[in-house]
Amino acid sequence: MKKLLMVYAVLLCLLFVYVYNYSRGEKAASNEGGGPLTGSLSEKFVMVTFQSGIEYWKSGLKGFEDAAQLFNVSVEYRGAAHYDAHEQMTVLEQVIAKKPAGIAVSAIDPKALDSVINKAHEQGIPIVLFDSDAPGSNASTYIGTNNRDAGAAAAHKMAKLLNGKGETAVITQPHQYNHQERTKGFKKTIEQSYPEMKVAAVLDGKGDELASKKQAEALLKKNPHIKGIFTTEANGASGVAQAVKAAGLTEKISIIGFDKDKKTLDGIKDGSIAATLGQDTWQMGYWSLHMLFLSSRHFPPDMKTARPLPSSIDTGITMITKENVEAYYAND
Amino acid sequence: MKKLLMVYAVLLCLLFVYVYNYSRGEKAASNEGGGPLTGSLSEKFVMVTFQSGIEYWKSGLKGFEDAAQLFNVSVEYRGAAHYDAHEQMTVLEQVIAKKPAGIAVSAIDPKALDSVINKAHEQGIPIVLFDSDAPGSNASTYIGTNNRDAGAAAAHKMAKLLNGKGETAVITQPHQYNHQERTKGFKKTIEQSYPEMKVAAVLDGKGDELASKKQAEALLKKNPHIKGIFTTEANGASGVAQAVKAAGLTEKISIIGFDKDKKTLDGIKDGSIAATLGQDTWQMGYWSLHMLFLSSRHFPPDMKTARPLPSSIDTGITMITKENVEAYYAND
Repeated sequence: MKKLLMVYAVLLCLLFVYVYNYSRGEKAASNEGGGPLTGSLSEKFVMVTFQSGIEYWKSGLKGFEDAAQLFNVSVEYRGAAHYDAHEQMTVLEQVIAKKPAGIAVSAIDPKALDSVINKAHEQGIPIVLFDSDAPGSNASTYIGTNNRDAGAAAAHKMAKLLNGKGETAVITQPHQYNHQERTKGFKKTIEQSYPEMKVAAVLDGKGDELASKKQAEALLKKNPHIKGIFTTEANGASGVAQAVKAAGLTEKISIIGFDKDKKTLDGIKDGSIAATLGQDTWQMGYWSLHMLFLSSRHFPPDMKTARPLPSSIDTGITMITKENVEAYYAND
Repeated sequence: MKKLLMVYAVLLCLLFVYVYNYSRGEKAASNEGGGPLTGSLSEKFVMVTFQSGIEYWKSGLKGFEDAAQLFNVSVEYRGAAHYDAHEQMTVLEQVIAKKPAGIAVSAIDPKALDSVINKAHEQGIPIVLFDSDAPGSNASTYIGTNNRDAGAAAAHKMAKLLNGKGETAVITQPHQYNHQERTKGFKKTIEQSYPEMKVAAVLDGKGDELASKKQAEALLKKNPHIKGIFTTEANGASGVAQAVKAAGLTEKISIIGFDKDKKTLDGIKDGSIAATLGQDTWQMGYWSLHMLFLSSRHFPPDMKTARPLPSSIDTGITMITKENVEAYYAND
């Protein structure tokens, strides 16, 4: 009987310990689910682009997904198939109608999308711009390359390549804000810092390899003094390199491209392109989701006037030349 | 005997359930500790400033603490008591010796601290700059106001106040990077955009109300054409306002200050200071801890060349004038 009592005592003790631990576990578990930095898979964050099929967006989407995994939320990728502002507006309208947890959009046009972006904002849907800004909109922040600075960096590199002398040209997409900024940064820097250099022409390459090639061909016929060409987007440099090669001027004209798609890297490797400015598109997607997730929660309620999000996040650029090009293959 | 056996059986069952649950709990707990967005209180993140006693840092430290709470990590506040680069270097050395989980430092000097900052970086201690950058160091990122842009915004505001005409002066701290940038942004913008304006003098206010007042007194005696004064730091504007008032020129000279300490806000309210540029110091601390925490984990291992952190985070500025000054009292 004494033994039995002891067994019961031990049993009771164990039961007590068990219940105590179980209730602690419950508490921890509920804290985990509703905790500050874990969402739920029913929260959907949408990335909206244009020319949505091109390879360029892949790395940004990967960053967006990587951050979503961190916060345990879902993502969706949407975009206008073409280079068409109206199409992107329609897609964005459709996305807003579904009331997602947040939207990251790269704006094809710095003004056309303002009203739709503001609509999301008014409905309380967090919205951020990435890669290409719409600075007049009410979006919370811009995440991407500081394109003015990138254009300036291209100008300094060009000046080095040309020993500070000679005429240059820019081939760009004149309607898109990020390209306008790159062009401005390049032009202003040449004008202010290199008195023996000149930006002789700014041309529309339509974001297309063939169109950029044709523009370069026409340019070289019209202006034989051109010593350097800066293309502000991914598809331009390889097109320009073809035109320069066809004219037999590869040794005489320096080309600086933008982004790190395979054709541009190949051009750097074979010497037909002098340099390219690598953007960190993974970071653009990663921090976009980060900002969207955080903007819907986690800010102290006593903040009256402070903006909850940074004014902008500069994801930086890297100058890629023959010296370091190998490291950039198959990295995105 | 049968009863006793049954009791043992129940006991064994319970023990089994208990052990099973306990091990699950262990797993959850260890997952929590090593999980992507939860740290442990043994991870200490240190904020290092200079003139560490001034009110200016309070809001940044609050942001640092708020983010630490989110990630369940600890913070410590350290700083040089005086405006002394050597003292700050010593403090930073002491902090590094303790091998903290990360360091956020506001650099009193853009170059003097480079070697100590790089030492932390070499030892694998995440280190970021906030508020005042050391752009030549190997720190991962800079979080704070884009001070060049802020100086430009002050210039545009000054031009509005003076209808685009007249001589101006800057009272600054000439050895600190953020103040150098503000001065540059102001000067360049006046020179490039306002041909009928001029920056007639750039003076050292030593970050001090009285020193700034004395500089303004001397300036007004020497140059009766001054129509506007831009002070690049928190203590300057109220000192300059006293000098201007004593000279009976309050109606004739427009003062633009920096930051939103009480004296400056009072000056805006009573009309002796025209405007001030409010920084979001809470965000500086908040995102500093964020970047430090994330830089030590959570980046995909397959990233070879991409930088893990943004090049910089611009926490933005707000133009504070008589119209909106009330909202900024007691907000930090």
